[in-house]
Amino acid sequence: MKNTATLLISCPDQRGLVAAIANFLYTYDANIIHADQHQDIDQGLFLMRVEWDLSDFKLPIDAFPAAFQPIADRFTMYWRLKLSQNRSRMAIFVSKYDHCLEDLLYRFKSGELQCEIPLIISNHEDTRRMVEFHGIPFHHIEMTRENKVDAEARQLALLTEHGVDLIVLARYMQVLSADFVRRFPQQIINIHHSFLPAFDGAKPYHRAHTRGVKLIGATGHYVTEVLDDGPIIEQGVIRISHRDSVDDLIQKGRDLEKAVLARSVRWHLEHRILEYGNKTVIFD
Amino acid sequence: MKNTATLLISCPDQRGLVAAIANFLYTYDANIIHADQHQDIDQGLFLMRVEWDLSDFKLPIDAFPAAFQPIADRFTMYWRLKLSQNRSRMAIFVSKYDHCLEDLLYRFKSGELQCEIPLIISNHEDTRRMVEFHGIPFHHIEMTRENKVDAEARQLALLTEHGVDLIVLARYMQVLSADFVRRFPQQIINIHHSFLPAFDGAKPYHRAHTRGVKLIGATGHYVTEVLDDGPIIEQGVIRISHRDSVDDLIQKGRDLEKAVLARSVRWHLEHRILEYGNKTVIFD
Amino acid sequence: MKNTATLLISCPDQRGLVAAIANFLYTYDANIIHADQHQDIDQGLFLMRVEWDLSDFKLPIDAFPAAFQPIADRFTMYWRLKLSQNRSRMAIFVSKYDHCLEDLLYRFKSGELQCEIPLIISNHEDTRRMVEFHGIPFHHIEMTRENKVDAEARQLALLTEHGVDLIVLARYMQVLSADFVRRFPQQIINIHHSFLPAFDGAKPYHRAHTRGVKLIGATGHYVTEVLDDGPIIEQGVIRISHRDSVDDLIQKGRDLEKAVLARSVRWHLEHRILEYGNKTVIFD
Amino acid sequence: MKNTATLLISCPDQRGLVAAIANFLYTYDANIIHADQHQDIDQGLFLMRVEWDLSDFKLPIDAFPAAFQPIADRFTMYWRLKLSQNRSRMAIFVSKYDHCLEDLLYRFKSGELQCEIPLIISNHEDTRRMVEFHGIPFHHIEMTRENKVDAEARQLALLTEHGVDLIVLARYMQVLSADFVRRFPQQIINIHHSFLPAFDGAKPYHRAHTRGVKLIGATGHYVTEVLDDGPIIEQGVIRISHRDSVDDLIQKGRDLEKAVLARSVRWHLEHRILEYGNKTVIFD
Repeated sequence: MKNTATLLISCPDQRGLVAAIANFLYTYDANIIHADQHQDIDQGLFLMRVEWDLSDFKLPIDAFPAAFQPIADRFTMYWRLKLSQNRSRMAIFVSKYDHCLEDLLYRFKSGELQCEIPLIISNHEDTRRMVEFHGIPFHHIEMTRENKVDAEARQLALLTEHGVDLIVLARYMQVLSADFVRRFPQQIINIHHSFLPAFDGAKPYHRAHTRGVKLIGATGHYVTEVLDDGPIIEQGVIRISHRDSVDDLIQKGRDLEKAVLARSVRWHLEHRILEYGNKTVIFD
Repeated sequence: MKNTATLLISCPDQRGLVAAIANFLYTYDANIIHADQHQDIDQGLFLMRVEWDLSDFKLPIDAFPAAFQPIADRFTMYWRLKLSQNRSRMAIFVSKYDHCLEDLLYRFKSGELQCEIPLIISNHEDTRRMVEFHGIPFHHIEMTRENKVDAEARQLALLTEHGVDLIVLARYMQVLSADFVRRFPQQIINIHHSFLPAFDGAKPYHRAHTRGVKLIGATGHYVTEVLDDGPIIEQGVIRISHRDSVDDLIQKGRDLEKAVLARSVRWHLEHRILEYGNKTVIFD
Repeated sequence: MKNTATLLISCPDQRGLVAAIANFLYTYDANIIHADQHQDIDQGLFLMRVEWDLSDFKLPIDAFPAAFQPIADRFTMYWRLKLSQNRSRMAIFVSKYDHCLEDLLYRFKSGELQCEIPLIISNHEDTRRMVEFHGIPFHHIEMTRENKVDAEARQLALLTEHGVDLIVLARYMQVLSADFVRRFPQQIINIHHSFLPAFDGAKPYHRAHTRGVKLIGATGHYVTEVLDDGPIIEQGVIRISHRDSVDDLIQKGRDLEKAVLARSVRWHLEHRILEYGNKTVIFD
Repeated sequence: MKNTATLLISCPDQRGLVAAIANFLYTYDANIIHADQHQDIDQGLFLMRVEWDLSDFKLPIDAFPAAFQPIADRFTMYWRLKLSQNRSRMAIFVSKYDHCLEDLLYRFKSGELQCEIPLIISNHEDTRRMVEFHGIPFHHIEMTRENKVDAEARQLALLTEHGVDLIVLARYMQVLSADFVRRFPQQIINIHHSFLPAFDGAKPYHRAHTRGVKLIGATGHYVTEVLDDGPIIEQGVIRISHRDSVDDLIQKGRDLEKAVLARSVRWHLEHRILEYGNKTVIFD
């Protein structure tokens, strides 16, 4: 199991930035494993991700914030530091469609997703047996129009109790309340079954079929208060033809949804995503 | 140069359809080269394309309509017959962006597009030299808000004079009047630089950049009176990243537009497209 | 559950073929659902797949062979008839790598793969728990250089006992003996983790990494006596970069292997594949 | 027209590398536009590309080598410096197939390829008219088995006279002598019409058709003395089916060859490629 720190930075683009960061890390003998940066010329913005080995880093990691803050102040940086050994605690919300859930659980089991999964929440019982086969606690919280406020309160209590810092909506089929969303900024990932912004909202495969498109898509994105409008993390498409019925689109789309959601989640867990404005930079 | 006939049929799905058509063709010793069919189960529709060699077909092709009509009547068929030796007469409309035009001209020269190109019309002079290098008449018709009715009348006169039966808008950047469009049903192909229905209308690359999508697309479609809403013939996408500026999208998109438009035009010229409702079947 | 018959035909291309087949089916009131045909002009070969509803087909299906044989004789046809209700009986062979196995089991459970899975055979115990969770009998048959003849005999006994007519090698990592292969012509599907014919044989990801390719691939193919040389059913590729280590290739490749193998198996189960020479026609 | 310097570096991976380079550039007030780096953990190798604006760089660019060499020595760097205003001088070698040539010329004309094209050399007259339309000198040098040594000598004389530093083989169809190749290390780019290492050598489309592959590919690579074995720059594939004849493969392949070659050439011209071993890093 690796033992690294990842620093994510965004700030106004200025000369001397890279030198200052590189010198800081070199001072403490950081063995840099990956470094990637991006300059948005139009917006005058600098974004960076740097990951280094902690095994022989000479600054105790607890002392990092105090030591780094002067540089952050000098360049007006937004920054966050993530340690590979502090794994994200991910909850999965699921409805009856279980393909994305199964896919995530397989990737979790095989070590592809570096996280803990303290619980899975569903408004249906259908996936309980499979979740429990993987040894993960399953919580059934019924969700109706009438009980939505209560049900979300119960969800929140569970999430808080388990220290969850990432919620993945694996075809959850329920719209979260604005209040719920506000509590988890850039911490909720949804898979939408279209290439956004086309076919946002309900029944995208049916609408794609009606419109006669030649490609269908899927989009992994952070959830914001506006439905299907949050920062896009990843998208994919596959070719369809006139031979494909709506059911065929749904079947073909499943593979796409799984792949796009898995990449979105993995990049989040590996701290490869920086948001700016309503967009994302992916440091892959 | 091949000498074939292609029959396109659509009608309510019924038993005995294929037998009736196959028997008819066999009666006259047709040597079938390609046959393809599609059943839309939901709509109870049957669509077919069959192409055969005319060199030893025993029915004089002029006599085909009278001979085939009884079968067409029996099954309430819409049908059309196309001969490879009656090549389509294609006009290209272009503005200043010349990448699709150059691409089409290269494919024409190399024999990939089986058609005549009696003329090219532009509202700018920029592409004249290149068009004339290919030995094709170039017509400059200025187009302003004020002269639009007149200018379209001049275009129509030229199209009629040259017997044009296909108009390709190769990044023409002008909206055709509804009256103009009505004269060429399923005879005008446009390339739109987005994956419709996303980013229909103006400046799709700019809007794609603003939205932060991870794929950009292009759509070849028939032009109808509603802007960017006609039957889709072909679509493609390519991956972009945060590193791509709007100019990069425009550059990457050029290759996509060329490829998608070329396929759309080729399928039309080879009589591989059947429209139904607002959709297309592509018999490739 | 649908109740259809699928007829697969290959024969020398001749006039009157389609008429003869269509007339035969029409005689018994066949309601054709899909029909697709292909002519290989170079080889003078005709290949066809036609699927029809049996619910109101007027010929008892047991009487089909006798009724159809005169047509088959007239045109020197190779043909086979498959009924949707006689599901294939598929065995899966697996080693320690379980991603393809899990993927196939999920698709089986969700109804995407129309077959029975009477047993799964592995030379390791690793996947037993997961297989048994799905309620499928798991057989562990150790396989060493020394016991190979015996072990294959035990496999064969099980396959015979369970009436298996399709064997899927889901990253089985063992080479089958020529004798074993000969007993299952076009009935063994393997997934090879490269775009054949590149990197046939052992360790394709390592060799792809060493060669510095920019795409890696996977190939689903029928197994013949020559290693990695059988008729190709399906292939896919994904983009890699210099950032990807061999382990990254292996991880990215897993998704590709799953998708390519699943399509290969599905097409086989739906009787969409016709082999000719060392190639396949896929009637999708 | 931009005025930048691009520094490409490869050396053993060591701590302090990035700090040393960043400090050096900051000392002279470099306004960094792009920076990208890669560490090959297995080989302990560090590779970097950094591009900065020269308009307010405080070190005269002529003085760069002397100023930078101490850092290069300290870290045992291989490095090269490229100025955007010293454009590459590219010769194109072509045979009768003109699709890649036309594509490159269009991209050159439209400003996508930042280079000079002082001459085009062909062993056939076919492309002369088109080349001269673009205002580029065309040299016809016949090439036979008998005159190969002489013909290459004439080519070399022209390349030397025009200061050529990049040769693009745009479907040239002739094998260069080892002696010729040795004079232009990493300066000759070829497009091979297969996904190497599959189908290296002659007639790859015919062999792909015979093998029955489901994808065809193209590979842009540097030419070395071993045929089709040099470092791969870029690859692409497209899907084919049983419906495609060899001629269809050739036609579909043309679009792929154009796209893959154009990307390979553009990355070279923008100094985005670093070779190591027999592989490339692409800093896109």
